[in-house]
Amino acid sequence: MKNKFIATIADALRQCGLADGMTLSFHHHLRNGDHVVNMTMDAVAAMGIKNITVACSSLFPVHEHLVQYIKSGVITGIDTDYMSGPLARAVSEGLLPTPVMFRSHGGRPRAIGEGSLKIDIAVIAAPAVDALGNINGSEGPSACGSLGYAMPDAKHARHVVAVTDHLVRGGLGRVSIPHDQVDHVVVVDKIGDPAGIVSGSISLTRDPVALAIARSAQAVIRASGLLKDGFNYQTGAGGASLAASIFLQEDMRAMKLHGGFLLGGITRYMVEMLDEGLFDNVYDVQCFDLSSVQSIARNPRHVEISADTYANPASKSACVDYLDAALLGATEVDLNFNVNVTTDSNGNIIGGSGGHNDAAAGAKLTIIVAPLVRARLPIVVDKCTTLTTRGETVDVLVTERGIAVNPARKDLADRLRDARLPVCDIAELHETAMKMTGKPLPFEHGDKVVGTVEYRDGTIVDRIYATK
Amino acid sequence: MKNKFIATIADALRQCGLADGMTLSFHHHLRNGDHVVNMTMDAVAAMGIKNITVACSSLFPVHEHLVQYIKSGVITGIDTDYMSGPLARAVSEGLLPTPVMFRSHGGRPRAIGEGSLKIDIAVIAAPAVDALGNINGSEGPSACGSLGYAMPDAKHARHVVAVTDHLVRGGLGRVSIPHDQVDHVVVVDKIGDPAGIVSGSISLTRDPVALAIARSAQAVIRASGLLKDGFNYQTGAGGASLAASIFLQEDMRAMKLHGGFLLGGITRYMVEMLDEGLFDNVYDVQCFDLSSVQSIARNPRHVEISADTYANPASKSACVDYLDAALLGATEVDLNFNVNVTTDSNGNIIGGSGGHNDAAAGAKLTIIVAPLVRARLPIVVDKCTTLTTRGETVDVLVTERGIAVNPARKDLADRLRDARLPVCDIAELHETAMKMTGKPLPFEHGDKVVGTVEYRDGTIVDRIYATK
Repeated sequence: MKNKFIATIADALRQCGLADGMTLSFHHHLRNGDHVVNMTMDAVAAMGIKNITVACSSLFPVHEHLVQYIKSGVITGIDTDYMSGPLARAVSEGLLPTPVMFRSHGGRPRAIGEGSLKIDIAVIAAPAVDALGNINGSEGPSACGSLGYAMPDAKHARHVVAVTDHLVRGGLGRVSIPHDQVDHVVVVDKIGDPAGIVSGSISLTRDPVALAIARSAQAVIRASGLLKDGFNYQTGAGGASLAASIFLQEDMRAMKLHGGFLLGGITRYMVEMLDEGLFDNVYDVQCFDLSSVQSIARNPRHVEISADTYANPASKSACVDYLDAALLGATEVDLNFNVNVTTDSNGNIIGGSGGHNDAAAGAKLTIIVAPLVRARLPIVVDKCTTLTTRGETVDVLVTERGIAVNPARKDLADRLRDARLPVCDIAELHETAMKMTGKPLPFEHGDKVVGTVEYRDGTIVDRIYATK
Repeated sequence: MKNKFIATIADALRQCGLADGMTLSFHHHLRNGDHVVNMTMDAVAAMGIKNITVACSSLFPVHEHLVQYIKSGVITGIDTDYMSGPLARAVSEGLLPTPVMFRSHGGRPRAIGEGSLKIDIAVIAAPAVDALGNINGSEGPSACGSLGYAMPDAKHARHVVAVTDHLVRGGLGRVSIPHDQVDHVVVVDKIGDPAGIVSGSISLTRDPVALAIARSAQAVIRASGLLKDGFNYQTGAGGASLAASIFLQEDMRAMKLHGGFLLGGITRYMVEMLDEGLFDNVYDVQCFDLSSVQSIARNPRHVEISADTYANPASKSACVDYLDAALLGATEVDLNFNVNVTTDSNGNIIGGSGGHNDAAAGAKLTIIVAPLVRARLPIVVDKCTTLTTRGETVDVLVTERGIAVNPARKDLADRLRDARLPVCDIAELHETAMKMTGKPLPFEHGDKVVGTVEYRDGTIVDRIYATK
């Protein structure tokens, strides 16, 4: 049998037949501590290759390193679910010759599975690899826990290269990606910087506005009638979202409830609820902190899932389909409850859907939590600068000045009023915001299209233009 | 979201659009205790459907029940890796209108993955299912352990129906097949008979011939130079194979060796070696007894693997590729070291490759263990009645009367001679056998082709004719 172990990333890419115009894919579980995208593109550039599309499930400030390769023509395309930092700024300024394809965390595996995103070489940052080439994410100095977003790539890419800094002599017990999907293994000094991979501990916000919003959001869940045994829940890692977990925990204890699963990017607040027995399972497509990395390695009820299982709308079912409630953030919410988490109100790329529109589409109750005003800009707007999540999938907007319910959910508005929650019209919230900030100057965008926004089902729903 | 839970198998098949001419697939982990193949075909027959191909990874005496459906035209095709019992006899007698396609355990997932075996509906006997539709094999009254052979079906079939007798309220921790691959779940009283699913305990042979062969086989492994730290090993569940595990265990203890993995159908002898720390891992595509079912549920180093990971020759690597030694049985071995485990010497279908030709192709050292004579018939023959495993992948034949080494492995013959093992020419073994049995009467077969034998890579290597 051929030896899978190759001395350098360049040698491995050569063995995969790297050529101009190919698509290389990466996952983002090492987050802002990732070295592998940058190292790989260094090797690609040194080989004199041009015109590469980088398909990475998310890109962070650490990937500023890639700006030089856009300038030199090595990278001419980007396909991602989220991007922030200097690379995103450079794209907003029009540096990349083609528009970035923005997908959701469920849309990406859908595109990979159906073949509309064809991956020539998947390069997998692999925290632990054994002698056969089995990979897991939960051992070694760069442990990141779940490798859920890398699984569709490993399954479908023509060639798969694992890059690791932790070669295990005995076989791995936990296997995230089995060796039959791995062509080559490259051992390097360091695949990432632990400080950037996971936060040692994510601490709760003390911002009184965020805490007030979190408390209201949990009151909405309580009043919705959905909070009962078997409750399935997803929340983000933003300030109000995390704080809401604490209030949920208190309610579940008081009501003696036993939930089903916790979903999404996982933090210690979810791990604590699992350990306390408040929920049966954590389904983990991505770990956000050290507690969750340790938990996935030790607790069999903390289940690693692929992006297909998490949110792919072409799957026979996805975890998001089973959500009772999802609590999500927003950069903008408009009068039709559409949400933007892709750009700011000046059209600068500052994120992307990630799992936002997937969770919203799946959950019985989708709650958007946001302050009415942020950095002197209104969050509730006439029309979103960029469409990330369709208003028809959003049920409630919770702000510190009131709770707006989607008019399509009259039943829910009635329930919230019965619970004496401060329900108001979203237009009122918009007016209040405008009174606080004044009408913001309309921003003018440039002519160049720098991003295409694909909804999770494959529909193109928006374009992002260069800033001026 | 649509409700996955359907009242009856017939309703589920209807929802999948069951129609004449379709291929239904099944797995064989419930072995001779399986109820699901029979129940499903009862439903198909009751619906008046005809011309179905049953693609089941193996078929056992319990599947005699299907003979009536061949007679009535409900079943007109069979695709399998192994079949024994009355159904196999009926096929040998020419009952089925089309030849059975015989594949190997690695060739089957290759065919499914490449699309040459297209599955319309995969019906999965599921020992435990949770509210989302996640499946595992290690819980519930019909626990069978690994579901490795069902995994390629679930991944590639157009429709997937799980049939269970154990619906779990809380989510499963161990997941063999994730819910995103499952369309429908049907709950029935019993999916199988535990007594037929796993042997409570497989006990060692006391047959002195088998023990002598086992001891010689282990002497060959010792002399081969392959028995060192990291040793990877597969053996079958036949008498001599199991006994050889005990001698291996003794050698490893005495030599203070630490092995890599144990592979294949798993028994308590392998579990004991894992628990004792003699090996790092058990890779389990199928459990043969209760000990292995319990072990896979409790020990994270006992890893459930898919048939793709086990033996698919189209995979980027398969576990069989990493084998140092494989110890396999034979119905016939011919002068070119070709092996037959598909038919007896009279052309009756009595088995099939299963993982035989996969393990032989992968292992550095493939040892065939067989008595020289069985039921007054010679095992070493001029030419195999049916070709299952190519002689070029077989290194050694161990019998109670001597050890024959494939002439292509002169290095190995030298090592065995140096170790004073009784190496002889395979022709000598053939002559000895003939002296014991007399020259067997040549058997005459009928005209009808009742089976096509596909080698693991997709090559058609033999045909099986009806008996006369």
